[in-house]
Amino acid sequence: MPAEGQLNTGVITREGEMTMNTTGAKQYAFLGLGNMGRALAGAALAEGRGVTVWNRTPGKSAELEERGAVAAESLEDALRSSPVVVACLFDLASVEEQLFGHADLLRGRVLVNLTTTNPEESRKIGRWAAENGVRYLDGGIMATPGMIGREGSQILYSGEEAVFEEERDLLDLWGESRYFGSDAGLASLWDLAILAGMYVMYAGFFQGAAMVGSEGVKAVDFAAIAQPFLRSMTEFLPVQAQVIDSGSYEHGGQSLEFSDLGKMVRAADDQGVSPRAVQMVQDLLREQIDAGFGHEDFERIFEGFRGGNQ
Amino acid sequence: MPAEGQLNTGVITREGEMTMNTTGAKQYAFLGLGNMGRALAGAALAEGRGVTVWNRTPGKSAELEERGAVAAESLEDALRSSPVVVACLFDLASVEEQLFGHADLLRGRVLVNLTTTNPEESRKIGRWAAENGVRYLDGGIMATPGMIGREGSQILYSGEEAVFEEERDLLDLWGESRYFGSDAGLASLWDLAILAGMYVMYAGFFQGAAMVGSEGVKAVDFAAIAQPFLRSMTEFLPVQAQVIDSGSYEHGGQSLEFSDLGKMVRAADDQGVSPRAVQMVQDLLREQIDAGFGHEDFERIFEGFRGGNQ
Ligand SMILES: NC(=O)c1ccc[n+]([C@@H]2O[C@H](COP(=O)([O-])OP(=O)(O)OC[C@H]3O[C@@H](n4cnc5c(N)ncnc54)[C@H](OP(=O)(O)O)[C@@H]3O)[C@@H](O)[C@H]2O)c1
Ligand SMILES: NC(=O)c1ccc[n+]([C@@H]2O[C@H](COP(=O)([O-])OP(=O)(O)OC[C@H]3O[C@@H](n4cnc5c(N)ncnc54)[C@H](OP(=O)(O)O)[C@@H]3O)[C@@H](O)[C@H]2O)c1
Repeated sequence: MPAEGQLNTGVITREGEMTMNTTGAKQYAFLGLGNMGRALAGAALAEGRGVTVWNRTPGKSAELEERGAVAAESLEDALRSSPVVVACLFDLASVEEQLFGHADLLRGRVLVNLTTTNPEESRKIGRWAAENGVRYLDGGIMATPGMIGREGSQILYSGEEAVFEEERDLLDLWGESRYFGSDAGLASLWDLAILAGMYVMYAGFFQGAAMVGSEGVKAVDFAAIAQPFLRSMTEFLPVQAQVIDSGSYEHGGQSLEFSDLGKMVRAADDQGVSPRAVQMVQDLLREQIDAGFGHEDFERIFEGFRGGNQ
Repeated sequence: MPAEGQLNTGVITREGEMTMNTTGAKQYAFLGLGNMGRALAGAALAEGRGVTVWNRTPGKSAELEERGAVAAESLEDALRSSPVVVACLFDLASVEEQLFGHADLLRGRVLVNLTTTNPEESRKIGRWAAENGVRYLDGGIMATPGMIGREGSQILYSGEEAVFEEERDLLDLWGESRYFGSDAGLASLWDLAILAGMYVMYAGFFQGAAMVGSEGVKAVDFAAIAQPFLRSMTEFLPVQAQVIDSGSYEHGGQSLEFSDLGKMVRAADDQGVSPRAVQMVQDLLREQIDAGFGHEDFERIFEGFRGGNQ
């Protein structure tokens, strides 16, 4: 995975958005200057927005200040500086610690919170905001810091729809902005669901690399072949999704029995490699086959995820 | 996944290979006319090659015969018809059943076996071939029948290198041909390793779809966002591979601790969805963190696959 340490300085400038307002620029406060917070603030600076920054530990704002940001003396100063506050801290606890005591200063302001939280945590912040008159938008960032403002960066939002609409000229600087609904937990749920797909995909790649690695094959040589293949196989995901949504697994696609991964588990074992990732899929398959659905489509393993921990 | 039932008739004709030899065409015998066997034979016919076909159960050759194939009366006739025999049966048992008793007829001929077998099984066939003077090439097809002869189709080979070189004009009709070494098991190992990556990726997609599905989101709506993201995330696989090959997991990339998937497992649980796919990754992560490597790169979870079942 890419290092988190690269701050993106080359933000895409879209045509027609070249207005480098030096006077009367919209003002934003950015809380949290980790790798991601700096990338978000940097993208706003690159478009000439007025940016005030704050970080718990001082000393992280030098480069942003060179580019025109104002470093607030205190969190309170930062909150007072702007009608729109963007938070990118570490977790729920850091948001609670810094912001829940400042409801008075945040009342009537917009809070765009891009700190990663799980759905229940986002809902908790959303409830606190609603009770305190804070206009809340929760975001989940589907990008690394280096991708902010570049092709492929997506940011998922939920919470107050009017905030999402009003602040699009900020949000769209970071990537493609998507809104999922007023339940503040939805962006996080989507975020975690998509990242789940990513992490599991990575583990599958490692499983394969370990299998050929047992014969001395380098992982880069495996990647040279596996990566284009996996990329092209993502084309089938929307097709699989259609099968899942159809409510039937009898479309004559590849059957569960045909998909049996016993061969793969066996091959990994024979090579002295742990088959744990393919074993997870094989367990899903076997459960459906053992329940009598062997002739139905492979997509039926989706049912193994429904209905709780097994 | 795509249906297996579509026989590809529109084979790519590469420039400069338009020679539809009607006389003196090279002769090939195709054993096994399942969905894949028909696609393979069809691709040879489309390029004007001489094709004799055989299937255990009669009645599967009508379309191929219309296109110029000769249906053999018996397996023996099929074997005698051509210097090159292409087998695409079901499994090792079917190869043993049909071919091991015919060493006499196969001696001196080329046997290209595209039946899916695991590495040990391929090695077994390779040994039998070597003992009986059969020139053996083992293949693993990284494509669905509909992809044969089209962009994205890859066929992996191992076994006798001279056969691979001599028969490239046939092999390349089906897709991109890759050779991995004289150990007949290597193509299968690569095949299963790459497919392991694919199946695990699919399970990860289903995990995510189930998570948002718990809030009534359709799988196709999830795919609309998750698929482009996962496709672009495959770009990191070669980078991860470099980390793995480097022999160190201290390159300052995303750390194991940062990657902790507890949030994801929790979110799935909270939504009443089984977290089994992300749990598999989380177990890999926790093992490394608990062993004291939390500050090292995420790629260290690769080590959880090395050294056997855990
Ligand atoms: N990096 C990525 O690829 C990525 C991708 C998507 C989402 N995110 C999310 O973005 C957020 C920030 O990530 P990052 O990459 O910027 O992490 P980071 O580089 O580790 O920075 C963490 C930031 O959180 C601050 N912080 C931690 N605890 C705090 C507390 N109790 N009070 C106030 N501030 C606190 C840190 O301040 P100090 O300097 O004072 O410690 C620092 O500014 C996280 O929620 C992360 O999950 C990151
Ligand atoms: N379809 C794919 O997407 C795909 C992809 C990669 C690799 N492959 C591999 O290609 C091979 C064939 O797959 P397919 O899709 O063509 O399967 P299929 O449509 O189910 O056809 C199976 C073929 O195997 C034959 N067969 C089964 N047992 C036999 C036996 N004991 N003796 C002789 N023939 C026997 C069948 O003959 P009968 O008609 O007499 O039953 C039929 O021709 C398999 O090893 C498969 O793993 C397939």
